[in-house]
Amino acid sequence: MKELKSIAVLAGRFGMLPGVGRKTALRYAHAVIDMSEQDVDAFCAALREVKKSVKLCSVCGNFTDDDICDLCRTRQKKQICVVSYPKDVAAIEKTGAYDGAYHVLHGTLSPMNNRTPDDLNLKPLIDRLDGVDEVIIATNPDVEGEATAVYLARLIKPFGIKVTRIAQGISMGSELEYADAVTISQALGRRTVL
Amino acid sequence: MKELKSIAVLAGRFGMLPGVGRKTALRYAHAVIDMSEQDVDAFCAALREVKKSVKLCSVCGNFTDDDICDLCRTRQKKQICVVSYPKDVAAIEKTGAYDGAYHVLHGTLSPMNNRTPDDLNLKPLIDRLDGVDEVIIATNPDVEGEATAVYLARLIKPFGIKVTRIAQGISMGSELEYADAVTISQALGRRTVL
Repeated sequence: MKELKSIAVLAGRFGMLPGVGRKTALRYAHAVIDMSEQDVDAFCAALREVKKSVKLCSVCGNFTDDDICDLCRTRQKKQICVVSYPKDVAAIEKTGAYDGAYHVLHGTLSPMNNRTPDDLNLKPLIDRLDGVDEVIIATNPDVEGEATAVYLARLIKPFGIKVTRIAQGISMGSELEYADAVTISQALGRRTVL
Repeated sequence: MKELKSIAVLAGRFGMLPGVGRKTALRYAHAVIDMSEQDVDAFCAALREVKKSVKLCSVCGNFTDDDICDLCRTRQKKQICVVSYPKDVAAIEKTGAYDGAYHVLHGTLSPMNNRTPDDLNLKPLIDRLDGVDEVIIATNPDVEGEATAVYLARLIKPFGIKVTRIAQGISMGSELEYADAVTISQALGRRTVL
């Protein structure tokens, strides 16, 4: 049986969301049919409102509904933590372990995918290095994140600013048995004295 | 960090979809921010269109954009396969193993959740039993699906119509080791002679 065209179209839209395959997209589309008309209207309104009201902070690039985000307004500016995406800011904030400022690159360097430094939110970072003591690079510990970290370190060190990288090793609560070889060898190479 | 209000609202909407938790909903909401305005408009249009154009077939209760669905128009009516939801019709159609008609209940009986026969699409099924040889009950093999099957069998048999139930046992390609106890004992109890 062919799915009805309107269901297939909506499933196609859901399929544009991250990690949503064909089956899940269809499941979501079917769920929409079961929603009340008010709920569908509210869903649309929420989609449009997010697109309309969420902007990027002109200082750090994080999501904001103002010109400058709350974090940029309230945090100490001696430390800047550089991340790839706004969701990484949220992940770090949840820990409560950091009280400095952030900078969101909106991507990583990836020669394979033709993403060069020009595609990153870099210039505003350089413009705000005055008076900064430390830049903490918190891109993901994968190939692209590492490449981005190395590039940033080379770019920022000449300003006489300390550049650090978040620690890599075995995750808390995980088991050595299931860690991949690179993680284990990194954890060995970066072992600390007790 | 609090999420921006508009992001939280949209995440709440995504959270109404089946199987979407808080983290996934937020991930979807962030993805919408990265979409182009055209894509968001198209997403809204698709949501509204599905709600507007998809109706339930007045005969079988399956999704249709007409008064009567394609399957009801084209299939032999000697057999009616009764399923809980439209997605189950799609699953059976994909096999190509069935050429009869369907009937969609839009639910199962569930005393626990206060779902009684009145909540199911039952009357149209009784109204179309004339000339039917067999009703195949293809509700899920769980407690609610079984209860619904038993109820339907009692309801339909007095019309002198054969009522059958899809077979239960170990799934093709699965391993006995991982099958649950109920499935294994059902498979033993319903063993067939080779």
